[in-house]
Amino acid sequence: MKTRTAVIYEPGTPIRVEEIELDPPKEQEVLVRMVAAGVCHSDYHVVKGDLPAYLPMALGHEGAGIVEQVGPGVSDLKPGDHVLMSFIPACGSCPSCVSGHSNLCDKGAGTLSGPLLDGTFRMHGEKGDIGQFCYIGSFSEYTVVPVMSVVKIADYYPLSRAVLVSCGVPTGVGSVIHRARVTPGSTVMVIGCGGIGMNIVQGAAIAGARMIIAVDIHDFKLEKAKEFGATHTINSSQEDPVNKALELTWGVGVDYAFEAIATPETIAQAFNATAKNGTVVVAGLSPFLAQAIPISPLNLVLYQKTLMGTLFGDSQPRNDIPMLLRMYESGKIKLDELVTRTYKLDQINEAYDDLLAGRNIRGVIEFS
Amino acid sequence: MKTRTAVIYEPGTPIRVEEIELDPPKEQEVLVRMVAAGVCHSDYHVVKGDLPAYLPMALGHEGAGIVEQVGPGVSDLKPGDHVLMSFIPACGSCPSCVSGHSNLCDKGAGTLSGPLLDGTFRMHGEKGDIGQFCYIGSFSEYTVVPVMSVVKIADYYPLSRAVLVSCGVPTGVGSVIHRARVTPGSTVMVIGCGGIGMNIVQGAAIAGARMIIAVDIHDFKLEKAKEFGATHTINSSQEDPVNKALELTWGVGVDYAFEAIATPETIAQAFNATAKNGTVVVAGLSPFLAQAIPISPLNLVLYQKTLMGTLFGDSQPRNDIPMLLRMYESGKIKLDELVTRTYKLDQINEAYDDLLAGRNIRGVIEFS
Repeated sequence: MKTRTAVIYEPGTPIRVEEIELDPPKEQEVLVRMVAAGVCHSDYHVVKGDLPAYLPMALGHEGAGIVEQVGPGVSDLKPGDHVLMSFIPACGSCPSCVSGHSNLCDKGAGTLSGPLLDGTFRMHGEKGDIGQFCYIGSFSEYTVVPVMSVVKIADYYPLSRAVLVSCGVPTGVGSVIHRARVTPGSTVMVIGCGGIGMNIVQGAAIAGARMIIAVDIHDFKLEKAKEFGATHTINSSQEDPVNKALELTWGVGVDYAFEAIATPETIAQAFNATAKNGTVVVAGLSPFLAQAIPISPLNLVLYQKTLMGTLFGDSQPRNDIPMLLRMYESGKIKLDELVTRTYKLDQINEAYDDLLAGRNIRGVIEFS
Repeated sequence: MKTRTAVIYEPGTPIRVEEIELDPPKEQEVLVRMVAAGVCHSDYHVVKGDLPAYLPMALGHEGAGIVEQVGPGVSDLKPGDHVLMSFIPACGSCPSCVSGHSNLCDKGAGTLSGPLLDGTFRMHGEKGDIGQFCYIGSFSEYTVVPVMSVVKIADYYPLSRAVLVSCGVPTGVGSVIHRARVTPGSTVMVIGCGGIGMNIVQGAAIAGARMIIAVDIHDFKLEKAKEFGATHTINSSQEDPVNKALELTWGVGVDYAFEAIATPETIAQAFNATAKNGTVVVAGLSPFLAQAIPISPLNLVLYQKTLMGTLFGDSQPRNDIPMLLRMYESGKIKLDELVTRTYKLDQINEAYDDLLAGRNIRGVIEFS
């Protein structure tokens, strides 16, 4: 079939929205009609070229849609089912999956990816095969994805909001509740209040942190962070966030510092702002070329600090996605407030311009 | 009173063993007659000058002795009590102490130190006041130390062996059982098999690790590591330890990698040898000037790794020292086998030469 899809051909060039050929689903795959797709920074690494990837690539990994057709062997999904995409497939049987870390599933080892799991392509353009980012490619009217990459949800959620629970919300909230395991009464700093960082702020509030210091260079994000539970804000283009965090904590430092930008420098800021026995969680994808973190190994030991990375907030999509949606239902998780602006698929480059300019918390592509 | 003490006056010069003046204990202090003192690498940072410290400084922080006199206000120690030194005082009432991390006691914040906790000196030489390393200065026939820095032990342990439970054993074993919490059946790598690393090897064996890969540049240490439970050894002067560890684990990497040297490069080796969701524990004191760790922040996130420092192995001396001595008693912990050679106090420079040349697991100064 034909579908319209956002494809990157060459780093540094605009994303092209074009009609491509889409194969029917193969074994253990489904054809999904997309309803909404979130505009997340990770895809942009491929656009910019700072993560090496297969090209051309259909972008988009945060997505919500409706199953249109199922491939051979698919038994637990049927046409009409509402699904969210998971940017890491979960096979359910590898050592990571069976030990409670399906976010590290062996099938996800190749994430970024080009072909689907069987090594072949479903998307084809004039110049040949088109890869699918994270096996998904959600910036497309239709896409074919592995069953392992979708999670069925109840059909009464508005998909243009539920879509955020596909990636940004579990990554942010999971970083707090699964990875760092923030304790009630603790002090927290969050560097970077975009789609991930804002959900770290909201996760810290849910976890009962007594002080949540939001750091960003955009005042409108800091104002928004207060709505999500930040008790203090630092505009790091105007103040040194480490000194200010130390001042706010009477020289002690914060118990937990989250870094949702993933530059080596902001990781170091998070490290230097933590207290003795403190924990730094890095949740964002750094450029491939960064090969060092400018922190003192002596201070790592003397202050017994912990620096942990987290992928997808150590969330397990099959468990966490339904849980987070229930929390949305009961008012415990904000989704509507995360969406700054919606776009049509043809506006994908504009959506990224807004993301990069810091104008959005989250932009969402809506397919009419 | 007069006592003979090992003092460093100037980085890069030999340690001088000389007679100095020792004041009587003040409030909440005790005078201890030293019986044994372990030769640990940490003091050497002051000798070499790569950690800034008060000078002149009486060295030595691992020590075992007998209380000779108690100062005003001391109620739970009396002359004749056998004690081990703790290089971090534990006040028992600061936030770290009351939350189970007395190894991070606020009173220990000044460790390295010069004067005792009240800001005054007990040791005096011809050229004025002499500091005490970690408030201790165990390379001395007699020393005066805070009550907070000693732990009373049963009087039937041989002090020239029990002395190792003052620092090296809790730091190594604690890194495994308290900090990393190594699980039975897991795979472990230990880089550096000196006084700390060898105790990490023995801790990993006690914790039930199924594979313990010992890494060092000295074959005799690797042979010794096998006695302590290493299942595999890598001489890193001959083989790349990361490649070899990956080969031994079928490409997966180890669950836990311990770094007991604390150079940025060996920390990176430990990081690169760990599996997805793996843990790196840094247990040694890096030079003050090291200000970056050459690891990929992208891999930290993609593989969800954890890099943790640990001070004293997150051990709580008042609980762990008696526990480890009981384990020695029942044959669960090896102490005798850790001591490569004993020295007289006058041989302190020779003891450090042997340490730096890699000829010792642990050297012990015995006071006749």
